[in-house]
Amino acid sequence: MKAVKWYGKQDIRIEEIEEPILRPGQVKVKVEWCGICGSDLHAYQHGVGVQENKLHPLTGQKAPLILGHEFSGTIIEVENCNRNVKVGDRVAIEPLLFCRNCRYCHQGKYNLCDSYGFLGLHGNGGFADFVVVSEEMIHKLPDNVSLEEGALIEPTAVVLQAVKESSIKLGDLIAIFGVGPIGLLTVIAAKAAGASTIIAIDISEERLELAKGMGADFVINASEENVVKTILSTYGRVDVVYEASGVQESFFNAITVLKKGGEMMVVSLSAEPIQVNMLQFLTKEINLKGSLAYRHIFPHVIALISSGQLDVKKIITKKIPIEAIVEDGFNQLLSDKSQAKILVKMN
Amino acid sequence: MKAVKWYGKQDIRIEEIEEPILRPGQVKVKVEWCGICGSDLHAYQHGVGVQENKLHPLTGQKAPLILGHEFSGTIIEVENCNRNVKVGDRVAIEPLLFCRNCRYCHQGKYNLCDSYGFLGLHGNGGFADFVVVSEEMIHKLPDNVSLEEGALIEPTAVVLQAVKESSIKLGDLIAIFGVGPIGLLTVIAAKAAGASTIIAIDISEERLELAKGMGADFVINASEENVVKTILSTYGRVDVVYEASGVQESFFNAITVLKKGGEMMVVSLSAEPIQVNMLQFLTKEINLKGSLAYRHIFPHVIALISSGQLDVKKIITKKIPIEAIVEDGFNQLLSDKSQAKILVKMN
Repeated sequence: MKAVKWYGKQDIRIEEIEEPILRPGQVKVKVEWCGICGSDLHAYQHGVGVQENKLHPLTGQKAPLILGHEFSGTIIEVENCNRNVKVGDRVAIEPLLFCRNCRYCHQGKYNLCDSYGFLGLHGNGGFADFVVVSEEMIHKLPDNVSLEEGALIEPTAVVLQAVKESSIKLGDLIAIFGVGPIGLLTVIAAKAAGASTIIAIDISEERLELAKGMGADFVINASEENVVKTILSTYGRVDVVYEASGVQESFFNAITVLKKGGEMMVVSLSAEPIQVNMLQFLTKEINLKGSLAYRHIFPHVIALISSGQLDVKKIITKKIPIEAIVEDGFNQLLSDKSQAKILVKMN
Repeated sequence: MKAVKWYGKQDIRIEEIEEPILRPGQVKVKVEWCGICGSDLHAYQHGVGVQENKLHPLTGQKAPLILGHEFSGTIIEVENCNRNVKVGDRVAIEPLLFCRNCRYCHQGKYNLCDSYGFLGLHGNGGFADFVVVSEEMIHKLPDNVSLEEGALIEPTAVVLQAVKESSIKLGDLIAIFGVGPIGLLTVIAAKAAGASTIIAIDISEERLELAKGMGADFVINASEENVVKTILSTYGRVDVVYEASGVQESFFNAITVLKKGGEMMVVSLSAEPIQVNMLQFLTKEINLKGSLAYRHIFPHVIALISSGQLDVKKIITKKIPIEAIVEDGFNQLLSDKSQAKILVKMN
C-alpha cells in the first residue's frame, strides 16, 4: 500500500509498504481522507514533534513513521471486537493514545495521560491506504456526515474541547487571536456555542476573509490597525478570548481587551516562554487556561456536524491526491495563507 | 487627633490634625488597632500606590493622605444610619471603595469596580485616632473576636477570597510560594479549607519558621534546596499552588510541580511582566488565576475567626505605639524578615 512517511526535517517520503497486520480487538480501515495538521507542518518544517530515538511506550514505534492523525474511512475488516463495529461502517478515528493506568486515565482525563501520544506522530498514522486501529478509537459517522467531514472531526474536537472548557456563555462578545485552521474552527464553534459577536484578529488578509466566511462578525488586521484601540472603542470589553496565534503581542492585547474577570483560553502551542503583564492580570482577575487535545468529545462533534450546527466543511480549501502531498500540500500551506485545511485523498 | 500621613517616598509624618466631620449615613470610629500592610510598605519604600496628582473620584482626596486600611475600633458616634449600627459597637472596617454604578458594581463584583480604591491609599485611612466611614463599611465583631483580630480581618479577607475562588478541595496537596503575611495567612486559610498537606516555600528561614507555626506541614528554603526536585520526589504532584512571592522563579517552579489540570492562584502583585512556559502550561492544562482584594467576604472571615477555624492572631509578631510607627514599624519590616504582622495601637 501507499504511505507517507516522516524521516526528519523536510524529509517526507511516499513509499510502497506492506499493509498492517490486524490483531484481536482491532479493525482495519480503508482510509478515504486525511487532513494536514499544523503539527504535521511543524514536523515537516522544523523536524520536531514526531517520536524519535526511543520507541513510544504505547505504540512500540519510532520514526520513520507514517504521518496523519485527521482521518476517516471505511472498515474493511474486524477482528474479535467487543463493540458494535462492522465491515462497511464509515468512521472517524480518534487518534489519541493513552495508557489506561496512570492517575489521569483513572480519572477519565485521558488527554492528560502520562504517556499520551497520537497516531501519526508517535505511531503510524492515517496518510496510508490502510490503517489498523483499536476498536475504541472508532467513531461511526451518521449517513448525513460525509467522509470529508469525517476527516475534520479531529481538529474540530480540539477546538470544541477548548470552547467547552472555557467560560463562554450565550450572548458573549468573543475575540479570536489567530485564524489559521484552529482559529477558524473556533469561529464556527464559538458561534455554535451562542456567541453574539465574534471578532477575528490576524495579520493575513486572506485568513481574515476566510474568518468572515466562517461567521466572524468583525475582522481586524493586526498589521494595519491598533487591535486594542479598535476593539475597545468599537466593540467594548471582551468576555472570552481564544488565543490561537502563539504570538507574544496577542497575549498583551488579549489581556488588555478582556473585561475584568474575563477568560483567555489558549489553544496555540508557543515554544518560547510568553510574558504576562501580571499587574494587569491580577487587577483584572483574568483567568488564563490551556486546553490540550480532547477527551470524550468526538461523539459531540459528530452530533453537531450531523445536526448542521457546525458547518466545518467550509474550512476545506483544497483537496489533493496523495502523490501531490509534499508540493501541493505541505509546501503550499507554508507559503499560501489563503489555504486553511487541505485534505489528502487516499486510495 | 494624631494621624500618620504619607507625603511621598520615605516621607511619612505623624501629625496633629483636626478630627474628621461626621455626615449623614456615616459613623465615627475610635480606632484601636491598625496593621501595617505590604502596600503601605511599598508606598513608603518606593513612593507608589497612593493617590497623587488628581483627586480620587470616590473620595475627592489625594496625597498627603492618612495611611492604614487594616483597622478596627469602637463606634463613638452615629449620624442618620439605616443599618443597625450603634455607639459602642466593636467593629472592623472594610476599606474598599466602589462606585455602585459601573457594570462590575451592578454585577456585585465591587472589587472590580472601574473606580475602586481603598481608604488609607486613595482616601484618609486608619492610622488616626478617629475615622469617619460610611455605615456599609462597618462589620460588627462578635464578643469573642478581639479588636486585635479585628485589625487582621482585612488581610485575611484578601486571602480567603483567593482561597475561595481557587479550586482547592478537601484533602488537597497545596504549595504556597512566598510566606510573607499574605502567604502565612494562606497557610491558615488553606488548612481551614481542608488541605491535607501544605508545603511552604521561601528564601527566609525566619519566615519558614513562622509558616511552620501557622500549620505548614513542610517547608522548603528555595535558596538552599531544589524546590522542584524536593517537592516531586518527596510529596508528589501539587493540586493547587498559591503564589505570594511575586518572583519569576516561583512561576516556573509552580507550573512544574503542579499536577496536570492543576491550578495556580496568584495573590502577589508583580510590577514586572512574568514569563510563563506556555508549552508546559498548555500540555499540562494549567489554570492560572488572579484574585484581587475581596467582595462579600468580611462576614465569612469574622465567622471563621469567631468559630476558631482561623487562628489569625498567630501572625501578629509585634505591637507598637503610633509614635514608633516609622522606626519600629516600617523600617523594621523592611529589615527584619522574622516580622510578619505589626499592629499599631491608636489612641
